[in-house]
Amino acid sequence: MNMEIATVNALPYEDFVNIFGNVVEKCPIITAAVWSRRPFVSLGAFEAAISEFIDALPESGKEGILRCHPDLAGRDLQSGTLTQESREEQTGAGMDALDSSEASRMARLNNEYKERFGFPFVICARMNDKATILRQLSERLGNERPVERARGIEEVKKICRLRLQGLVLIDALNKL
Amino acid sequence: MNMEIATVNALPYEDFVNIFGNVVEKCPIITAAVWSRRPFVSLGAFEAAISEFIDALPESGKEGILRCHPDLAGRDLQSGTLTQESREEQTGAGMDALDSSEASRMARLNNEYKERFGFPFVICARMNDKATILRQLSERLGNERPVERARGIEEVKKICRLRLQGLVLIDALNKL
Repeated sequence: MNMEIATVNALPYEDFVNIFGNVVEKCPIITAAVWSRRPFVSLGAFEAAISEFIDALPESGKEGILRCHPDLAGRDLQSGTLTQESREEQTGAGMDALDSSEASRMARLNNEYKERFGFPFVICARMNDKATILRQLSERLGNERPVERARGIEEVKKICRLRLQGLVLIDALNKL
Repeated sequence: MNMEIATVNALPYEDFVNIFGNVVEKCPIITAAVWSRRPFVSLGAFEAAISEFIDALPESGKEGILRCHPDLAGRDLQSGTLTQESREEQTGAGMDALDSSEASRMARLNNEYKERFGFPFVICARMNDKATILRQLSERLGNERPVERARGIEEVKKICRLRLQGLVLIDALNKL
């Protein structure tokens, strides 16, 4: 049952962080920081506060966010140690149903990507399927590091938006 | 078995974040960010990189760090949901062995503190015992919010230093 923004605004920080702490994967500090910015006039304003906090981080901090993300179809999926949100997103995109050639291609490209950039390939799985994910991974491997860091952060924001939309009602006047 | 700093410097980011991700409670983004700053000449340099990252955050980000910390002798201790590090630190300071009058005083003061400041009372439990923790909590309740935010962050750094010292060898030439 999604919450009204007024209900969100009334939450003590502990409940706020418990509910929204993983809208940016494994970065509850971001949610906990934007609690200071309440009240939010809309879900869009809540989302914008998160984006602004991320944008104000130094480049190392943005890389830190990316490094808190699991690989797609990686060892956390195999060992059952993904966060609930990531598990649902990865299985929705078919990451648990790769055939053996797809799985080995994904593992190889993920490793090349991490070796090249020092952070993992991040993409909004809910807006893609296994074919587009594999194609994007292969294409994005050719980018320069600053481009790819910015691109990964864009994807983090898309993931965040969809996670927020699963928790808070979008009001009619402030659609995202 | 504590690690040499050279071993720390050679870790891929995934192992680095797995091992050091909780030196600042529930803020693996900070560890993940400072991985970009390797190689560290010493444990002191590693610790300084974390401090500098924290100091460069906006005030809301510092409050975010504090809000990721559990209450002392609070519901996470009672329900067994503390991180391993926090559990050891809190039990070491006798937080699991309060008598009923101490427990109710702690709960009341924690709530007053959170109500007044919008973040929890943070203190390095390993450098205190239950008597000094209760006294500090009572005294610090009288501070202004910016003073207390800065004081909480100082305590976060002390906790971080002791957690790091439990994982990495201090070299003779660069003692903290």
